[in-house]
Amino acid sequence: MSAELYLNDFRPGQEFLSPTHTLSLEEAVSFAKQYDPQYYHIDVEAAKKGPYGRLIASGWQTAAITMKLKAATELANVAGGLLGLGLESVKWPRPVYPGDTLRVVLTVLDVRRSNSKPTHGVVKYSMDTYNQHDEKVMEAVTAVWVPC
Amino acid sequence: MSAELYLNDFRPGQEFLSPTHTLSLEEAVSFAKQYDPQYYHIDVEAAKKGPYGRLIASGWQTAAITMKLKAATELANVAGGLLGLGLESVKWPRPVYPGDTLRVVLTVLDVRRSNSKPTHGVVKYSMDTYNQHDEKVMEAVTAVWVPC
Repeated sequence: MSAELYLNDFRPGQEFLSPTHTLSLEEAVSFAKQYDPQYYHIDVEAAKKGPYGRLIASGWQTAAITMKLKAATELANVAGGLLGLGLESVKWPRPVYPGDTLRVVLTVLDVRRSNSKPTHGVVKYSMDTYNQHDEKVMEAVTAVWVPC
Repeated sequence: MSAELYLNDFRPGQEFLSPTHTLSLEEAVSFAKQYDPQYYHIDVEAAKKGPYGRLIASGWQTAAITMKLKAATELANVAGGLLGLGLESVKWPRPVYPGDTLRVVLTVLDVRRSNSKPTHGVVKYSMDTYNQHDEKVMEAVTAVWVPC
């Protein structure tokens, strides 16, 4: 277990790397049946005639996996827990296919003390998810509330 | 099954309402164990000492449920399928607790023909998720690609 992180442990440009997660077909179909039941997420045969020519994972599953991988980075040691403050933007520039191996790179963009609550601050960071070909499959900008 | 929707079926201000989904404790804990394993998402007892005083659902599960409810609105009848174009912003103004009943309201913000591909257009809309007390638990702005 690493030491807890406080606001002065963060600097713009700092990176946090995650372990990887390989998405199985079963996992993709099971998630999509529960949450995103479109034919190109749940039916291998029908997906061949769909927008990507094969089955792709739900973008929300990519987001959930990204969350999971983020929680396995050093950033998760922020004191008090990883309390998110919403997302400024989320894009899925490429689809994720079953069998893909995903990893996440967090990069600190901005660190500032809160005006309203000076015992805390906000660390803004980008959260980029890559596949095994180092192609970006999701990008987001978010922030976390950090004690000083 | 309703008729397929094309670009000229959309107008700013138009609303699409979803059915509801009640989140069980089992569902909340199971999702969080897989994707967002923080103590206040997976451990009822420990969560009592956490930031919300009780167990709350992962914001990503709220997002996934929102996706599922969206797919059950009339908007899902868009011709060619509900191809998302990313999200401009996502916020979780209040936590979701096990037992909460969620519903989604989609409101069309903007409808425009694509310049680069004039056979299609983009419908931008807000996606707001409410609990059983009509409190907003998630808000997002997104867009969908729609054939003319």
